[in-house]
Amino acid sequence: MTITVINGPNINMLGVREPGVYGEKNYADLEAYIETYAEEKGAEAIVLQSNSEGEIIDFIHHAMGSCDAIVINPGAYTHYSYAIYDALLAVGLPAVEVHISNIHKRDAFRHKSVTAPACIGQICGLGFRGYTLAIDYLLEEADTND
Amino acid sequence: MTITVINGPNINMLGVREPGVYGEKNYADLEAYIETYAEEKGAEAIVLQSNSEGEIIDFIHHAMGSCDAIVINPGAYTHYSYAIYDALLAVGLPAVEVHISNIHKRDAFRHKSVTAPACIGQICGLGFRGYTLAIDYLLEEADTND
Amino acid sequence: MTITVINGPNINMLGVREPGVYGEKNYADLEAYIETYAEEKGAEAIVLQSNSEGEIIDFIHHAMGSCDAIVINPGAYTHYSYAIYDALLAVGLPAVEVHISNIHKRDAFRHKSVTAPACIGQICGLGFRGYTLAIDYLLEEADTND
Amino acid sequence: MTITVINGPNINMLGVREPGVYGEKNYADLEAYIETYAEEKGAEAIVLQSNSEGEIIDFIHHAMGSCDAIVINPGAYTHYSYAIYDALLAVGLPAVEVHISNIHKRDAFRHKSVTAPACIGQICGLGFRGYTLAIDYLLEEADTND
Amino acid sequence: MTITVINGPNINMLGVREPGVYGEKNYADLEAYIETYAEEKGAEAIVLQSNSEGEIIDFIHHAMGSCDAIVINPGAYTHYSYAIYDALLAVGLPAVEVHISNIHKRDAFRHKSVTAPACIGQICGLGFRGYTLAIDYLLEEADTND
Amino acid sequence: MTITVINGPNINMLGVREPGVYGEKNYADLEAYIETYAEEKGAEAIVLQSNSEGEIIDFIHHAMGSCDAIVINPGAYTHYSYAIYDALLAVGLPAVEVHISNIHKRDAFRHKSVTAPACIGQICGLGFRGYTLAIDYLLEEADTND
Amino acid sequence: MTITVINGPNINMLGVREPGVYGEKNYADLEAYIETYAEEKGAEAIVLQSNSEGEIIDFIHHAMGSCDAIVINPGAYTHYSYAIYDALLAVGLPAVEVHISNIHKRDAFRHKSVTAPACIGQICGLGFRGYTLAIDYLLEEADTND
Amino acid sequence: MTITVINGPNINMLGVREPGVYGEKNYADLEAYIETYAEEKGAEAIVLQSNSEGEIIDFIHHAMGSCDAIVINPGAYTHYSYAIYDALLAVGLPAVEVHISNIHKRDAFRHKSVTAPACIGQICGLGFRGYTLAIDYLLEEADTND
Amino acid sequence: MTITVINGPNINMLGVREPGVYGEKNYADLEAYIETYAEEKGAEAIVLQSNSEGEIIDFIHHAMGSCDAIVINPGAYTHYSYAIYDALLAVGLPAVEVHISNIHKRDAFRHKSVTAPACIGQICGLGFRGYTLAIDYLLEEADTND
Amino acid sequence: MTITVINGPNINMLGVREPGVYGEKNYADLEAYIETYAEEKGAEAIVLQSNSEGEIIDFIHHAMGSCDAIVINPGAYTHYSYAIYDALLAVGLPAVEVHISNIHKRDAFRHKSVTAPACIGQICGLGFRGYTLAIDYLLEEADTND
Amino acid sequence: MTITVINGPNINMLGVREPGVYGEKNYADLEAYIETYAEEKGAEAIVLQSNSEGEIIDFIHHAMGSCDAIVINPGAYTHYSYAIYDALLAVGLPAVEVHISNIHKRDAFRHKSVTAPACIGQICGLGFRGYTLAIDYLLEEADTND
Amino acid sequence: MTITVINGPNINMLGVREPGVYGEKNYADLEAYIETYAEEKGAEAIVLQSNSEGEIIDFIHHAMGSCDAIVINPGAYTHYSYAIYDALLAVGLPAVEVHISNIHKRDAFRHKSVTAPACIGQICGLGFRGYTLAIDYLLEEADTND
Repeated sequence: MTITVINGPNINMLGVREPGVYGEKNYADLEAYIETYAEEKGAEAIVLQSNSEGEIIDFIHHAMGSCDAIVINPGAYTHYSYAIYDALLAVGLPAVEVHISNIHKRDAFRHKSVTAPACIGQICGLGFRGYTLAIDYLLEEADTND
Repeated sequence: MTITVINGPNINMLGVREPGVYGEKNYADLEAYIETYAEEKGAEAIVLQSNSEGEIIDFIHHAMGSCDAIVINPGAYTHYSYAIYDALLAVGLPAVEVHISNIHKRDAFRHKSVTAPACIGQICGLGFRGYTLAIDYLLEEADTND
Repeated sequence: MTITVINGPNINMLGVREPGVYGEKNYADLEAYIETYAEEKGAEAIVLQSNSEGEIIDFIHHAMGSCDAIVINPGAYTHYSYAIYDALLAVGLPAVEVHISNIHKRDAFRHKSVTAPACIGQICGLGFRGYTLAIDYLLEEADTND
Repeated sequence: MTITVINGPNINMLGVREPGVYGEKNYADLEAYIETYAEEKGAEAIVLQSNSEGEIIDFIHHAMGSCDAIVINPGAYTHYSYAIYDALLAVGLPAVEVHISNIHKRDAFRHKSVTAPACIGQICGLGFRGYTLAIDYLLEEADTND
Repeated sequence: MTITVINGPNINMLGVREPGVYGEKNYADLEAYIETYAEEKGAEAIVLQSNSEGEIIDFIHHAMGSCDAIVINPGAYTHYSYAIYDALLAVGLPAVEVHISNIHKRDAFRHKSVTAPACIGQICGLGFRGYTLAIDYLLEEADTND
Repeated sequence: MTITVINGPNINMLGVREPGVYGEKNYADLEAYIETYAEEKGAEAIVLQSNSEGEIIDFIHHAMGSCDAIVINPGAYTHYSYAIYDALLAVGLPAVEVHISNIHKRDAFRHKSVTAPACIGQICGLGFRGYTLAIDYLLEEADTND
Repeated sequence: MTITVINGPNINMLGVREPGVYGEKNYADLEAYIETYAEEKGAEAIVLQSNSEGEIIDFIHHAMGSCDAIVINPGAYTHYSYAIYDALLAVGLPAVEVHISNIHKRDAFRHKSVTAPACIGQICGLGFRGYTLAIDYLLEEADTND
Repeated sequence: MTITVINGPNINMLGVREPGVYGEKNYADLEAYIETYAEEKGAEAIVLQSNSEGEIIDFIHHAMGSCDAIVINPGAYTHYSYAIYDALLAVGLPAVEVHISNIHKRDAFRHKSVTAPACIGQICGLGFRGYTLAIDYLLEEADTND
Repeated sequence: MTITVINGPNINMLGVREPGVYGEKNYADLEAYIETYAEEKGAEAIVLQSNSEGEIIDFIHHAMGSCDAIVINPGAYTHYSYAIYDALLAVGLPAVEVHISNIHKRDAFRHKSVTAPACIGQICGLGFRGYTLAIDYLLEEADTND
Repeated sequence: MTITVINGPNINMLGVREPGVYGEKNYADLEAYIETYAEEKGAEAIVLQSNSEGEIIDFIHHAMGSCDAIVINPGAYTHYSYAIYDALLAVGLPAVEVHISNIHKRDAFRHKSVTAPACIGQICGLGFRGYTLAIDYLLEEADTND
Repeated sequence: MTITVINGPNINMLGVREPGVYGEKNYADLEAYIETYAEEKGAEAIVLQSNSEGEIIDFIHHAMGSCDAIVINPGAYTHYSYAIYDALLAVGLPAVEVHISNIHKRDAFRHKSVTAPACIGQICGLGFRGYTLAIDYLLEEADTND
Repeated sequence: MTITVINGPNINMLGVREPGVYGEKNYADLEAYIETYAEEKGAEAIVLQSNSEGEIIDFIHHAMGSCDAIVINPGAYTHYSYAIYDALLAVGLPAVEVHISNIHKRDAFRHKSVTAPACIGQICGLGFRGYTLAIDYLLEEADTND
């Protein structure tokens, strides 16, 4: 099973950006953590990042046909990108939305996700582990459907 | 007369994306349909598509001087891209906004267009035909001004 | 094919009412323009006008059985007449909503249409031509369904 | 005892209009059902219908002096006609508002009644029977006051 | 000088309707009071009343050409009839809006007038005298412009 | 036929609580009135009351399997208890919501019912009689379905 | 009869301030106009002006016992000074609110008056004449009560 | 490690309540699934359920001192129980909020969680697995802190 | 004189719960402080606590007849329990609402009290002393009425 | 200990202003009551009043250095004077906000205090006694800190 | 060139008031800094301060004729003083609004300026330097116009 | 010192775009003006422009390490790009937001900046000079910190 993991704006700044909120590990650590975890589970994780809303939409479109599921952390686009919402609906792949921090504890504008309704579900506040819990879920669902 | 037709995010997924809403024809069909229609009317349609807000703005800027009018379907950007609104105002070309589906029948966030106030008018819900009705209008207006 | 064209409040004041917004032609010009256009297309347009919400609902009810489609410009009722919305839903005829001016460029109260969700689509800002573009669409749809 | 039963816009389309919502019986059935029911209870029901807000107000004014109570289903006017609210206050007759469908289950704009505060109470969602339950109530109240 | 005085819904119920709010005099008293007052000033007042939004619009349209100014009390339509607002704009006659009661002291929905922006000004809370103060103003303005 | 009648918070204070709003009869009177009425109709009414949102939910769950229909007056919980709304949806029994007073005439917070969308319909403002009108309706519906 | 006429902030800038909105006459003209008018009617007008909310409240308190009625144009304080509203309620003198311009035609923040509910009524948009129409009304009311 | 798992209102109706939303397994299945899963991980799960807001608060208070972490699905109380929010803050135990369905895809009132800001994070839409992913996370965190 | 002091949800966690906000003394300290204070004033304080909205309502109902006044700190229920508001209105005992912390300095949802309008007044932010200031007030009022 | 007691707009009208809301005692009574009370407690109360927002700010600034604490009743400024809020923050003296009436029972605009977040706490609805309860509290706090 | 620099409420408390927000320098420092700076540029700065909205309006009126431009920091009045907005419009002098702190980083009520639309522009967050940057701008503009 | 100056969407259209709002100079003029100014001050300005939100975020990330401060005019993205806000927070460089026009005088959507809270301050309405005033400020601050 192949899972595309898409990270949105500023997630490449991990370790640099507000360590009190996002922790001290950097983006390369996150990539390595996810790829290794997937490999250990006998799956493949393709980890992508972009600061551009348009490129994230391109990633989602490209996922169709090239992978089995999506894990997406749309960063701040979570809160206003109806275009990403439409892209997730368009490809129809099983997707889980992930946020490293607990968006409900932060600025009011972060309390609402416009992209989550196009996903199976959402995990937030559980740090890097949120990505691999999402992978656990998606792999098991695949098993169930075999 | 040359008309630039600009399609926004996810319109390249036509036929794939929610056929119940957008119909079964794909994006190549749409391109061909518009180009042929314009040709039959003795005009030229340059049909562009991008998922990127920034690139759509670039298309609009480039239209100035290279064509006579714009037909634009900004997709989900319709509902929040004040930057596209500003771009349309900046170039000042006659523009008609088009939506394939009836945005008033769908999610509440689709009821408001922030880009339409920078256009001459808007056509929605009339499928692919919306694009060519917009072309009809723009060609006639050109005639009138000759 | 017979199409009922229903004009709402104050449209009879065309030419008199705010020519900067609505143009200099009067209501008789509009009637003649629509009737002639339909005739040239081999169809019949019955053009009605009323300032009364109740009478517009009566027109819509009466259209059922007496014509094949509706073109409606509900004027200011567009923005609050849920009763007209209900009437359009009740008769279920294919309908296109038309506005002479671009309602998105004007007062905030004109940005929302409560009647458009009961129509196939909406055309606004294209002047008198909006009516005949709507007729073009409806005639072609009829052809398609034959 | 004489009761005026006033039906608002589109209720004359019963049986035609959205049978999934309003049932399959038509408006003549409703009239007959109410009139017969009242007669069996030794009362008289005068059943009126209009699509016009102004005519409904006229009906209410006329009820004063010509009947003992009002049952009113203002249709979509329920949600915005402060003029009908004023009319009910002006005549001061005991009135019960009735809706065939459960307005709380439908579009958000139908959740609020601006006319109900001028009535004794409201019954909704109980189909045609709502009218006759209202009549039951009004007849008994009359008894009580004798 | 001829002034059309237009009274909206339920104003015909004066004396009957909530005397605590509107006083004990009836509608015939109001008509007589206005007509006599105008006559004494050497002018003519044509006093009209309707409960129908559409008919009020007809009155306004008809005023154009047949009189010099309008005094209008749109009753509850004051608070939602954008169609009457459009009608007043369309005819462009000098108009003064009048309310018998102080709308700012009553229900919240009565605090906003959607029709007043199409008038020269508004008088409220001064009872029947509001009508004749409006007439005083309109007659003097006419004098000024001679 | 057995009907569970569930009364929410403070309804046990009838006769004590604001007699100007709720009348002078007490809660025992209400119980007796409902039980007798049902008996006369050949049915059984089980009348319950609780001030606790949780216990009301328990009553609703328990109704499933032990009775045929529900009449519920959720008191102030009507306006915010999405948990009671969920409970009514969960059991799926035919239910009618009843309010003794006309909630549309009182505080703004009482104008919206969050529980009514999970019921067949709602009766308000008709005093104790609202309960028995609801019972009339439910018994007849049962007849219809036999 | 003595009437205190209180003018709020910036009204002393008449003639200077936005002549397109307020006319070309200056504040001394307004004072003279009002005083002369009152005198001609056999009354006395004490015309005061202040830019200070506190001083306006002092004027209102002082009016109690020293005059019979108040005409007040609270300027921009109209839209947020609940303290002036309280002052008018406290003294309980008959008061009429006046605005030179039609506040309903201008910025949205000017559409609501928080002070008007403490007055008998309001006159707006009728220029300087609004003040003297208010005086006409107050003098006549005094006559009526003799 | 001991984890208290608290289920809120109507979750005891699983399998009965809207199977299209919540699946076909019943509440006993959920209990067994969670208890077994924890046991296999060498931990203990105490699974509680209540329809009462007060009892859920009692459970949370009691958790303090008797367990190491909380998994909570507050059902509909998620959306309005500031009292549960306060309880979670008061005890300060690590807590993860879980929802079986994707609350972002459902009624608008379910989009906002008032309790999540008192938790480490939230998982929604991943069915029963959400509970055990939360347990995975909490067990690992405990490991990390040893 | 006997005063029932009712404490709502999470107040039993005093000393444990957010000491920065609520201080370091625990709930037993609060009980003892209030009881001793009342005793010293020659009165009796019955101090109750519950986390359940329904039980708090029961306490209020029971207070009627068994005590002379109520001091109530409804905790988080302050901000949404219209049922407690109704209970206080129903029993009509003199009541003072107390909050240990200054609710105006904290989360926005704590700024509004829906229960205070059913009380004589409210004291907030004055710590435990708020309870005894309320008792001072209620005892003196009783004196006054003797 | 010296306490500055600052009364805002219209409080000087006590006894005159709405006695149903504020009682029959006048402002001199209030001054005397507070001064005597403080004296009896071995403290000094300096009681000031102004209708001017600016002067109230001056009083607050002046309090710094000249007294130990503030009791403030900002009258209607409570609801919109962010400048008074800033002044209280600037001087940082312990302050208690007092309102004679229960602001939660009155007009909606009175439900929110913008000044209370700059105080230790607030007392409302307890009449003149609210001032002296505030003084009791402030004197004791001073004792505690010695 | 002469520039009037107007400081609003609480700015006289600089150095005292929240040094974390406003810095440690006091108001005399600010005055000296501005006056010296202007002098060095060959201009004159008249620096005024008032806590009174009315006096600030007086300053603005007086500026007309006595100086060439205005720099204004309206303090908290920025967020609600439409009267100051009107005053700035009335005199029509070039004005720049200045805030020492970044109002966009602070309380929500400080995010909106109602006075800025009457100025050429606004500078915020740049400390005392904001005043002199405004002066730089105004002096250069004067140069440009020579 | 090196300062990155980032211009957002449509700023490349200066001179073309709405000259009434933005002036007649074009984008090359702006670049030259800023670069020359910085050079004269002994600093370096790197002036960048993009219509793409993602590329602007890339510019901000890249600024970290390659320059000392940022001047940013995010164009229309100012009003909705929480992703740019996050980027500015992530890099933590001193930044000043600049707008050529006075955003407070224009469309309502331009009144709020979501990016300004991540900057030291904001300058708007002072034309091209706003950029160099920002540079003045940043250079001086650097001096201060040496």
